[in-house]
Amino acid sequence: MSDAADTKYRERMATKKQVVDERIARATIERGVLILMKGNGKGKSSSAFGTLARALGHGHRAAVIQFIKGRKATGEYLFFKDHPQVNFHVMGHGFTWETQDATKDRDAALAAWAQAEVYLQDPNYHFLVFDELSYMLKYGHLEPERVAKALAARPAHQNVIVTGRTMARELQDIADTISIVNDERHAFRQGVKAQPGIEY
Amino acid sequence: MSDAADTKYRERMATKKQVVDERIARATIERGVLILMKGNGKGKSSSAFGTLARALGHGHRAAVIQFIKGRKATGEYLFFKDHPQVNFHVMGHGFTWETQDATKDRDAALAAWAQAEVYLQDPNYHFLVFDELSYMLKYGHLEPERVAKALAARPAHQNVIVTGRTMARELQDIADTISIVNDERHAFRQGVKAQPGIEY
Repeated sequence: MSDAADTKYRERMATKKQVVDERIARATIERGVLILMKGNGKGKSSSAFGTLARALGHGHRAAVIQFIKGRKATGEYLFFKDHPQVNFHVMGHGFTWETQDATKDRDAALAAWAQAEVYLQDPNYHFLVFDELSYMLKYGHLEPERVAKALAARPAHQNVIVTGRTMARELQDIADTISIVNDERHAFRQGVKAQPGIEY
Repeated sequence: MSDAADTKYRERMATKKQVVDERIARATIERGVLILMKGNGKGKSSSAFGTLARALGHGHRAAVIQFIKGRKATGEYLFFKDHPQVNFHVMGHGFTWETQDATKDRDAALAAWAQAEVYLQDPNYHFLVFDELSYMLKYGHLEPERVAKALAARPAHQNVIVTGRTMARELQDIADTISIVNDERHAFRQGVKAQPGIEY
């Protein structure tokens, strides 16, 4: 690289450092956050599980509730289920579109949410994942007001990630971080079969 | 729930099941995929690490190369570094905007990419993460043609996730799945400090 290019690179990085440092200096509040991962693109649940790995790497205690379950044992379940710092719950019984039974689905959702509320009142849990929770609201199994109330009243340092395609307004109102994952391209639409280690 | 509502729910779920089943029946190709996680929202790297957990849950062998490193030991590194099925590499030395040295940065990028090419030729590795690779292309440290060529020539069953805000056209051309993570809201902008277990 030429000296001129070197100098330009150094200047570009010095400017970037200044921007980064200023942003860091401005962010001084220490508290737990509510993160929503929404949208129809691939990567919402996996993002929650990656953050779980991150939290565990720092020794935090965590709990996961998966509100929708397929027929197979997922990779995330197999991987995390025996970790001593994680409680991993998978709700009731199969996909709602497999059971097609409103009463059973609602009962399972209510039981899973009751478990969620236990964690949301327990300061020993630093990090919670409510995977695919949004469907329970979309299908009317859970009241958004009840869910938002419990989330808002949680311990101040507790971090929570909620995933799902669409998010109720009540959750968006109280969220600290919202990412929308958009589907620009998906292998599935090109005929590639869902595979272990990627889709589940 | 009333009988009428029950019936409506059952019909709605039966329709959904039909759509899901038809989509599954159409997707029959079995091969590895290249997934790009791009955009400026939170959740790209964590999605890659969640997919890593998923792959490990199914017993797959995996490797990670992080192309940008901060000063701190990240949660993902602490969590995965000793796992027997993962090789976890963190590239050279600090953020590029901290070093501000073009030659050192380029050398580190080239060394890291040489390691990436070793994995891309090894069929024993089922899953690879190239975290923040896109910056190496953006800053001109790596040639996009070289990167795309190695990715395209990898073993047929090998899955790869590349993360980073912007993606070179050459990578988008050969990707199977592209998700764009958009930043709708971020706690950082409300003054909340980056915290272990969430941001790193």
